[in-house]
Amino acid sequence: MRFARLQTADGIVNAVASGDSWRHIEDPFAETLAYTGAHTPADDAILLAPVRPRVIVGIAHNRGNNDHPLPMQAWHKSPHSVANPGEIIPVRRDIGTVNIEGELAVVIGRQAYQLTESNAFDHVFGYAVANDVTNIDQVPRDEKNFQAKSGINYTPLGPWIETEIADPENVATEVVINGRVVGQSGSFNLPSSVLACLVYVTSWLRLETGDVILTGAPNTFFAAQPGDRVEITLAGIGTLTNTIG
Amino acid sequence: MRFARLQTADGIVNAVASGDSWRHIEDPFAETLAYTGAHTPADDAILLAPVRPRVIVGIAHNRGNNDHPLPMQAWHKSPHSVANPGEIIPVRRDIGTVNIEGELAVVIGRQAYQLTESNAFDHVFGYAVANDVTNIDQVPRDEKNFQAKSGINYTPLGPWIETEIADPENVATEVVINGRVVGQSGSFNLPSSVLACLVYVTSWLRLETGDVILTGAPNTFFAAQPGDRVEITLAGIGTLTNTIG
Repeated sequence: MRFARLQTADGIVNAVASGDSWRHIEDPFAETLAYTGAHTPADDAILLAPVRPRVIVGIAHNRGNNDHPLPMQAWHKSPHSVANPGEIIPVRRDIGTVNIEGELAVVIGRQAYQLTESNAFDHVFGYAVANDVTNIDQVPRDEKNFQAKSGINYTPLGPWIETEIADPENVATEVVINGRVVGQSGSFNLPSSVLACLVYVTSWLRLETGDVILTGAPNTFFAAQPGDRVEITLAGIGTLTNTIG
Repeated sequence: MRFARLQTADGIVNAVASGDSWRHIEDPFAETLAYTGAHTPADDAILLAPVRPRVIVGIAHNRGNNDHPLPMQAWHKSPHSVANPGEIIPVRRDIGTVNIEGELAVVIGRQAYQLTESNAFDHVFGYAVANDVTNIDQVPRDEKNFQAKSGINYTPLGPWIETEIADPENVATEVVINGRVVGQSGSFNLPSSVLACLVYVTSWLRLETGDVILTGAPNTFFAAQPGDRVEITLAGIGTLTNTIG
C-alpha cells in the first residue's frame, strides 16, 4: 500500500492510495486502518512529507565507493530538516559545495531495539525516497556530521511511503538533474545491506514508530546548484522532486 | 519562574512553582500564561522531564580539560533518550565504562536560527539540569558520537526549568555520587561560553521551541556503576537525581 500525508482544505490528513484517489485514514500506523470516508483525487493531491519522524538516523558507510570494509557508523539529522515533495531547498552559498544524495529511507513501524537479522524487517512500516542534502565541503572539518548535515529543508522525503517492496536490498535508484540522468545505482550497491543498517542502528538506539533511517547514497550523490531541479526515483516507490533555491 | 511537567491523576500537566505548590498552566511557552485553576502541592508532585524536545544538541568542546583552543563541534542525541527525575538509567554492561556527565541544559523558547551574540539569549526560555550519560569507551571508535551517546534513559532532564538565572555563564555545578561530593565546577569552566554555544549551533541548525542544548561537562564527568545514586546540582536551578540500573 501507499501511504501519504496530504494538505487539504480541512488541514493535514493521512491517506492511502486507491485507484485514482487517496482515501483518507486516521493513524497510518494503526493495526487496523480507520477510513474517514473522505478522499482526494490523485490529480488534486498536495503531497507532504509522508511521515514526521522524531528521530532521523543516517548511515555513514565510511566510503562511498563500496570498496572499503570499514564498519558502518551512524549519525543523527535534525527532524526539523524534513521537507515536502516540491519544496525548495535553500542551499547555503557560503560553505562550499552542497550535494544532493538520493537514498532509500526506511520508515519504522513499531518500537525497534536490538533487532536481529530474523526480526528486523518485522519492525519496518515501509520505504520512501529521501534526499539527504549535505554540505559536503564541511565533512573534513566536521567528523560528527553536524555542519555537513544541517540546513533548512535538507531532508526532503516522499512522495509517499510504499509498504510493499519486493526486496529492499534491490531497489534501483535514478537521479535526474534538470532532465538529465546523472546517476543510476540502487540499494544493492550499498556497502552494508539495509538489514545490516537496521541491526546496527538498533543495537545502540531505540527507534520508535515513524522514525526514519537514511540508508546511504550508493554513488547517488551529486553537486547541486541554485535553480537545479532534482528528481530522485526509486523503483517500486516513486519520484521525489525538489528544486535547489 | 520555575516550570515543571507533572504526572497527575488527570494526566500530564504543565505547571509553575508558586510558594508550596505547583499551579497548573496550559502551554508554558505561551506569551501569556493561562492558568487552569488547579494546583498540586509541591510535596505531592511527581516531576517529569520538564520539556519534550524534538532536537537535543550536545557540544563537544574537543577537550575536557579546558586547555585547548580547538573550535567546538556539535552532535545530536536522540530525544527518545530523555528521562525523568528519579528514573533508573539502565547502563549497558557490555560496552566498557559508562560516564554520567553533569551539565547545564539550555531550553530554547522560540525559533532560533543564525543567532548573534546580541540576540541569542532572547531565544532562551530557561535552564535545567541534564545528565548526559555517555558510553565513554566507545568514543575512540565512534567519531560521530552515535555509539557513545545512545542508550535507554541516557538523558535525564530536570527537575524543572528555571527561567531566572542571574548569569548562565556562572552556574556552579556539583556532582554527588552515593552521598559523596565527586565534582565541583560550573559553566564558568566551559571551554566555550554558553553564548558561544548558542551562536555556533544556530549558525548551522534551526532550533525550535522546546529544543535543548547540552552545553558540555566542565570536569563534571564520572564513571558510574550499577546501583550508584547520582545527584547533580546546578546553583540557582536545583538537583537532578537518578539511579544507575
